[in-house]
Amino acid sequence: MESANFEDRCANTPLGMNDLDKWLDTLASDCVPRFTEWMSRMEHWLTNLDPNVQRVALITSGGTLAPLESHVVRYIDNFSTGSRGASSAEYFLKHGYAVVFFHRIGSLLPYMRKVKKYLDSTLCTNLDGSTGPNYSSGSTYLDIFRLDHTGHNVCLTDAVSADLAPIITEYMQFKSRLLLLPFETVEDYLVGLRGITKRLDQFQTHDSANRNRLFCCYLAAAVSDFFIPHDRRPLHKIRSQTDAPNARLVLDLYPVPKLLRNLACSWAPLAFLCSFKLETDHETLLSVASNRLLNNRSHLIVANQLDTRSREVWLMHRLNAGRELTVEHLTLDSHQTPEDLEQLLVTRLVAIHTTLEQ
Amino acid sequence: MESANFEDRCANTPLGMNDLDKWLDTLASDCVPRFTEWMSRMEHWLTNLDPNVQRVALITSGGTLAPLESHVVRYIDNFSTGSRGASSAEYFLKHGYAVVFFHRIGSLLPYMRKVKKYLDSTLCTNLDGSTGPNYSSGSTYLDIFRLDHTGHNVCLTDAVSADLAPIITEYMQFKSRLLLLPFETVEDYLVGLRGITKRLDQFQTHDSANRNRLFCCYLAAAVSDFFIPHDRRPLHKIRSQTDAPNARLVLDLYPVPKLLRNLACSWAPLAFLCSFKLETDHETLLSVASNRLLNNRSHLIVANQLDTRSREVWLMHRLNAGRELTVEHLTLDSHQTPEDLEQLLVTRLVAIHTTLEQ
Repeated sequence: MESANFEDRCANTPLGMNDLDKWLDTLASDCVPRFTEWMSRMEHWLTNLDPNVQRVALITSGGTLAPLESHVVRYIDNFSTGSRGASSAEYFLKHGYAVVFFHRIGSLLPYMRKVKKYLDSTLCTNLDGSTGPNYSSGSTYLDIFRLDHTGHNVCLTDAVSADLAPIITEYMQFKSRLLLLPFETVEDYLVGLRGITKRLDQFQTHDSANRNRLFCCYLAAAVSDFFIPHDRRPLHKIRSQTDAPNARLVLDLYPVPKLLRNLACSWAPLAFLCSFKLETDHETLLSVASNRLLNNRSHLIVANQLDTRSREVWLMHRLNAGRELTVEHLTLDSHQTPEDLEQLLVTRLVAIHTTLEQ
Repeated sequence: MESANFEDRCANTPLGMNDLDKWLDTLASDCVPRFTEWMSRMEHWLTNLDPNVQRVALITSGGTLAPLESHVVRYIDNFSTGSRGASSAEYFLKHGYAVVFFHRIGSLLPYMRKVKKYLDSTLCTNLDGSTGPNYSSGSTYLDIFRLDHTGHNVCLTDAVSADLAPIITEYMQFKSRLLLLPFETVEDYLVGLRGITKRLDQFQTHDSANRNRLFCCYLAAAVSDFFIPHDRRPLHKIRSQTDAPNARLVLDLYPVPKLLRNLACSWAPLAFLCSFKLETDHETLLSVASNRLLNNRSHLIVANQLDTRSREVWLMHRLNAGRELTVEHLTLDSHQTPEDLEQLLVTRLVAIHTTLEQ
């Protein structure tokens, strides 16, 4: 345990790869109770997966939460709906991939996000243009239901019944290739990422009958950059100023260890590794993203900006023959047919992944 | 603007009531774009409210978010599903109250929380006992739908169709007396609380034809204790350690001003004021709650503990003849019929509210 203590090993120098693995072992046993369930469910799912499936994608989605107390009342969170990941999962499934969807509890799920988008546009004309139940008219999602003539059964309103059919049909078609694994804290995420990528690396490499298997890591989750390590959190709720009027609160946060080097070098060295970089400032976006491409061993970075992220992204990679930095700008304009930017994005990534195979 | 500057007026001494009002004026214009919509929707709702309704409750519900940046990527949040508030709203409606439900976007809504509870128990047997989609079997909420024989329309499965009927019936019966107003940030909450309570105070007192109107403030929201005032937030996303490896982040947080004194003395002096106190530590719960009763001018404090909050609460007040501290313990045991603790809680509060009227 001591050797994996976060404070000693990590606060002042970067954790070495072995130390990081030990620290994750400690986390797994101390504060990630879901881990065993994830692994057994993934095993069950892989066993029952259509043997013709040759490609698997791990999609991480939604934000991680960094608890401020051991009995969590307060936490630091990231702004992330999970829309990017949920939408991308649908397109990977359409391209024939099996998908492990490792997501924040309560964030958007594949297909469910389409139902929500449809209901919001049907029920809602929010004055501020935001999505959500139609607060302006007082409608809620419950307004899609009506009572039948007996009054004892609930039906969908006719329009909703017809409009949802294509979404439910698609969901039923693909659900057997989709595994949903939920995380909540940043510790959940770190420990889960290791376990899942190591198992999918086995799936890719350890079955001698399937030499052509491909594994894509699509890391769209908004992972906390700073946290309070679990062995340094106060046990109980941080007291408010009732006890000390007007006292400020100073939080001393530690950087969350970066795992991509371990992932790329050790856990899943053959995986196609795509990571995301979100910034709010356009001026620094591409330089920050290209620095990260140099440092974190991703094959490809998807750079995006907070306020335009649903309309444009930049792919940055060195996958061309000369290993030069390549920047591809993908953008949705009003004349294009794709429904979502993720359709363009995933189609392009699948094409690159196919090239890497050859 | 200067006179309402948070740093100058509030950091070292408690804000006076007038200063607090000025500061809220600044907040309203600088960072609460929803405020105008809330007020116009409440006006419309009050105008159309059944004139026989003599009682109104403001229920606040869910957690407030404290942004760490102006272009919000990260924030400090509170653990709060909104279950208490959503459930309580249903019982206030049953007792004849009109309800303004001022809630965190995405938290549980009245009746919707019943649908969710039903679906979770139907679809779910999560290994860890948590509610949520049935991750163990891979079910999601989409599994309540089926395609009809044509394949072009979606229906509910038969069991779901029958089981949801009582909930939808109840929703339809009460929805005209329920106003949903959504907040997100702690600034939203502070500004909204003032606007809503002042308007409902008018509803209670300014209509000479209705001398018996009652207004109950039921403040169940989990309001941030600490925040970074909007004029002290960095504009862009706080940079992670890509730029400065292993640098820690120190956050200097200010106490959120307490508004209950203003509410009780100025905004709605005739309202029956119930506030909540949540602690994780049973040892300190009742002493902290009784201190708060002395300080914040609530008529009644509902004290509750994180891990038992759905089964027991303590009501603390001085509403008896001798003005002595009274503690009432409300608890759900397995032999009792009430479905939720909120049924006991709201029934008791309504009884007290009725007594105060006389």
